[in-house]
Amino acid sequence: MAAAVAAAAAVVNREAFRQAVVNTLERRLFYVPSFKIYRGVAGLYDYGPPGCAVKSNVLAFWRQHFVLEENMLEVDCPCVTPEVVLKASGHVDKFTDLMVKDEKTGTCYRADHLLKDFCKEKLEKDLKITEEKASEFKHVLAVLDDLSAEELGAKIKEYGITAPDTKNPLSAPYPFNLMFQTSIGPSGLSCGYMRPETAQGIFVNFKDLYYYNGNKLPFAAAQIGQAFRNEISPRQGLLRVREFTLAEIEHFVDPEDKSHPKFSEVENLEFLMFPRQDQVSGKSARIIRIGEAVSEGIVNNETLGYFIGRVYLFLIYLGIDKDRLRFRQHLANEMAHYATDCWDAEIECSYGWIECVGIADRSAYDLRAHTEKSGVPLVAAEKFAEPREVEKLVITSVKKELGLAFKANQKMVVEALEAMEEKEAMEMKATLESKGEAEFYVCTLGNVVTIKKNMVTISREKKKEHQRVFTPSVIEPSFGIGRIIYCLYEHSFYTRPSKGGDEQLNVFRFPPLVAPIKCTVFPLVQNQQYEEVAKRIAKSLTAAGISYKIDITGTSIGKRYARTDELGVPLAITVDSTTTVTLRERDSKQQIRVSVEEVATVVKEVTDGLNAWNDVLWKYPTHSAAATED
Amino acid sequence: MAAAVAAAAAVVNREAFRQAVVNTLERRLFYVPSFKIYRGVAGLYDYGPPGCAVKSNVLAFWRQHFVLEENMLEVDCPCVTPEVVLKASGHVDKFTDLMVKDEKTGTCYRADHLLKDFCKEKLEKDLKITEEKASEFKHVLAVLDDLSAEELGAKIKEYGITAPDTKNPLSAPYPFNLMFQTSIGPSGLSCGYMRPETAQGIFVNFKDLYYYNGNKLPFAAAQIGQAFRNEISPRQGLLRVREFTLAEIEHFVDPEDKSHPKFSEVENLEFLMFPRQDQVSGKSARIIRIGEAVSEGIVNNETLGYFIGRVYLFLIYLGIDKDRLRFRQHLANEMAHYATDCWDAEIECSYGWIECVGIADRSAYDLRAHTEKSGVPLVAAEKFAEPREVEKLVITSVKKELGLAFKANQKMVVEALEAMEEKEAMEMKATLESKGEAEFYVCTLGNVVTIKKNMVTISREKKKEHQRVFTPSVIEPSFGIGRIIYCLYEHSFYTRPSKGGDEQLNVFRFPPLVAPIKCTVFPLVQNQQYEEVAKRIAKSLTAAGISYKIDITGTSIGKRYARTDELGVPLAITVDSTTTVTLRERDSKQQIRVSVEEVATVVKEVTDGLNAWNDVLWKYPTHSAAATED
Repeated sequence: MAAAVAAAAAVVNREAFRQAVVNTLERRLFYVPSFKIYRGVAGLYDYGPPGCAVKSNVLAFWRQHFVLEENMLEVDCPCVTPEVVLKASGHVDKFTDLMVKDEKTGTCYRADHLLKDFCKEKLEKDLKITEEKASEFKHVLAVLDDLSAEELGAKIKEYGITAPDTKNPLSAPYPFNLMFQTSIGPSGLSCGYMRPETAQGIFVNFKDLYYYNGNKLPFAAAQIGQAFRNEISPRQGLLRVREFTLAEIEHFVDPEDKSHPKFSEVENLEFLMFPRQDQVSGKSARIIRIGEAVSEGIVNNETLGYFIGRVYLFLIYLGIDKDRLRFRQHLANEMAHYATDCWDAEIECSYGWIECVGIADRSAYDLRAHTEKSGVPLVAAEKFAEPREVEKLVITSVKKELGLAFKANQKMVVEALEAMEEKEAMEMKATLESKGEAEFYVCTLGNVVTIKKNMVTISREKKKEHQRVFTPSVIEPSFGIGRIIYCLYEHSFYTRPSKGGDEQLNVFRFPPLVAPIKCTVFPLVQNQQYEEVAKRIAKSLTAAGISYKIDITGTSIGKRYARTDELGVPLAITVDSTTTVTLRERDSKQQIRVSVEEVATVVKEVTDGLNAWNDVLWKYPTHSAAATED
Repeated sequence: MAAAVAAAAAVVNREAFRQAVVNTLERRLFYVPSFKIYRGVAGLYDYGPPGCAVKSNVLAFWRQHFVLEENMLEVDCPCVTPEVVLKASGHVDKFTDLMVKDEKTGTCYRADHLLKDFCKEKLEKDLKITEEKASEFKHVLAVLDDLSAEELGAKIKEYGITAPDTKNPLSAPYPFNLMFQTSIGPSGLSCGYMRPETAQGIFVNFKDLYYYNGNKLPFAAAQIGQAFRNEISPRQGLLRVREFTLAEIEHFVDPEDKSHPKFSEVENLEFLMFPRQDQVSGKSARIIRIGEAVSEGIVNNETLGYFIGRVYLFLIYLGIDKDRLRFRQHLANEMAHYATDCWDAEIECSYGWIECVGIADRSAYDLRAHTEKSGVPLVAAEKFAEPREVEKLVITSVKKELGLAFKANQKMVVEALEAMEEKEAMEMKATLESKGEAEFYVCTLGNVVTIKKNMVTISREKKKEHQRVFTPSVIEPSFGIGRIIYCLYEHSFYTRPSKGGDEQLNVFRFPPLVAPIKCTVFPLVQNQQYEEVAKRIAKSLTAAGISYKIDITGTSIGKRYARTDELGVPLAITVDSTTTVTLRERDSKQQIRVSVEEVATVVKEVTDGLNAWNDVLWKYPTHSAAATED
């Protein structure tokens, strides 16, 4: 019970902290609900000026850290996607959530959310709960993602869960496709969707990209763009939205060689990992060296390990707290059947551990699916230095006999015979030799037919081959940019007392890389001389490519510092003479005096990361803060 | 007739040139039709690696040139937009094109396109056309945009125009809304559209942005993002597509003061302008100084003139040929009724003069429309230093009398009375005084009612006012990024004979700012020493933030230069020793020798624009090209 009380207190604290962050973010226009003057639309948000700048900084760094560093092939494909593409990828049939409806009002809810909320509420707030019941609820939460529509429906009934807003009874759960549907062209006959991910645009271009890369593997393609999911009932602010920016990488490799030439550059990184085995056996995440994780087989291969390491560096450079970042391996039941291995970069925030980056080895699934549906082979070839002798399965159907036996169905039987895999074919050969005939299921007929010995010859023959043709595997790091940014906001936020101690001031400790504005310029008092100096400095900042803001309001300098700290601006220049100015750093509040001519250069050095603040600090005279900060 | 022959020859030349450019662009993956393996979707294109890099360079420069330089407030709003917003903006009712259907197959065509094609074809290819007919067709082309559905239909009938693919008869023209429609949320009840422009996201946020700017005018907000138009029959490649990137600026000003503090920085720019008056009187575009255009009232105001100048500079820096760029003023019939003045930056390419940037003074229309529909006042206030005495219209309705006369309709009559404008109210006052009653149309009732003298008092009273509240005007420069990029491709493309003279080689003369890759690295021959030097150089290029490509194929260096010229890469480093390398410039083919240590710095100086190629040329020994270029 003490545990339950503590848990409840933690929830209250988390929510108070979140409220403080979100209030600051909305008040300073980092983001606001979209179309607010029309009472908004759930799950749609606008980034205002500082949020938009943070986002564009994060994306520029992503390009630098991944695309430029790895020479990736960046592409830019449309959001509007014809049905055939998303049919092949499986989205039309399977990209669904289970939904329940309020039987009286018709309001829709996500079935798993209702069950999750119910169990969590019981665990956190019901102080009289039995041990047995508590472990039952915990179990439900653990297997939530695995429950079928029937199982979810049964639980909802068993627990008597009703519509949260009205307490009305709920319908049985049924699948709702999460894609925004539209119609392409004027005829109304051509169905399309807004893409739910950017990856498909890369897969369908594989052939051209492989050619562009000189027909060589491995290579990676990348795409940044909008993706759309028509969530049933969006919540959790920026974490579950209906339109969001994804940044995705598709790294194509030979399935027989998933080593990575630059793995040695990351292998000594250590960070929190949460392997499948540890999750199943109830352990906690622990610090593992990524080199060890790969060599011990915890992470399936070097390329996957390389990207995990690079993602770690990316997030840390942005300012994500490494103690609240872990790489969690998917459990067997979470992973798609075709995936080889999958790790999520999860970041802890007030909503719990949030999946922000998925890093999956998806094997050859996507390219095969599009090959099959489009008829265009999306394959790679390895040319042999010397021709190699290989044993190959050869299936020759005897068309005359098959024609006599199957008449109009002959073509389908022939196709099915020749499409047999090694194992199936060799079993048929054995059966034909022992019994003279074999039962054979032809899926295009939906029927079992009898194949006689004289209808087909199956053999293994030696052949000389000059190349090996194969479908590449793809390793996919996929970044939810909005989620990363939201977690970054929480990790960067802190409060400190004002000088008088009468109020708490908000600060975002963004690294210069991320900060929406690098520097503010404050003329200490409103006079023409200072304003002209401020303008001169502004010009030199623009020339140096540094984003800045001038604040010429007559407000006290302390209030102006507080305002700029709240935007996470790392440096502030106070114009308090016509020759030298005060340069103040946000977190330490330390101040130095720099000449008007030099100040843009110093700001550039610090914000470009060429010099740390501590390096410039000793070079210039310090300035006593007592007079100014209030 | 000679003129017709010359025109036909020009068409052939233009088409041959376009074919050469487009072939190169598609072969080198600047862009390709989207979803090609599924036979594509008309009007959707993917940017491949070089095209994507060009686009991201153009956008980065746009941010630098406009957002950073002018301290604009950049925002980022969703593409999915609820119906109410686009109802207010007028898009739901008016964003249509006139469509005709093939009466047998149902294939859809844009009615104006068919008529335009017919007239153009006649003018260009019909050698027996009479003077009279020719001037009729020219007139139709001139007024094409003004024709109503009925007029278009009549012309199509008169000329006997049939469906181009089948020669079947066509339906009468009818309007087709160009927005992609979708449904937001699971209920299916909430209609939404993919935004046809980014501007609305800014307008609906006006109140917050004005507050963010310290409640001060003027200020500008900007947005870069995808926009969508479900074109009836897309054609002209990248010029008319169903999804495209817009970059829009909404500059809000006091309608009583449209001066611009930085106008003096552009006033001496001279370029091709095509004022309305010159178009109407059949003159050609001519070079005008923008300062003169504003002072003579050709351009309505300084702010509009300032942006025209800035747009000119933007396009020129990108590499648009200034002789094929003009600013054309909208004719009275082209302009929306509320617009004050509107100029298009038109770029000439093989398709003719193409509108690439629109620069419009839209007055207060958009903010007023959203104020009215949302009920949230989107206004600004100017505080007076001293309170001012103003005469104001005061309308007081006598509710008791109105209630007796109109009963349940009283509220609507009161609202209509109190909403009267100055002129209408003073007329009613006069009528009431002379006749004792007045006829009054109440639009919410759809009826005329009789207002008696005792029902309302109308007067002008003197009041002290402390501020003036008004709806700001908006000046909107709107950039079609894809169109600018396509025109840039045509303006940058040229061919030159190979050294042997046996073939024509393609070159894009992109300025470094735009070039997809700044530099290529070629080890002259395949050996380990050279490849290691190449890797060292590559590392220093990455550190300097320069995008590059290494080509280690054994192909001749001449072929490798040709390949890289075709991508528009400005500089190539050939590793032909372990201490110094050859640095070659694309257009002049001049080569200098630079040390391995220095080369990244030299490349950075040239590609960042700190030094022109001609400035570095004399600093380093030249290298004889004879041995290498073939």
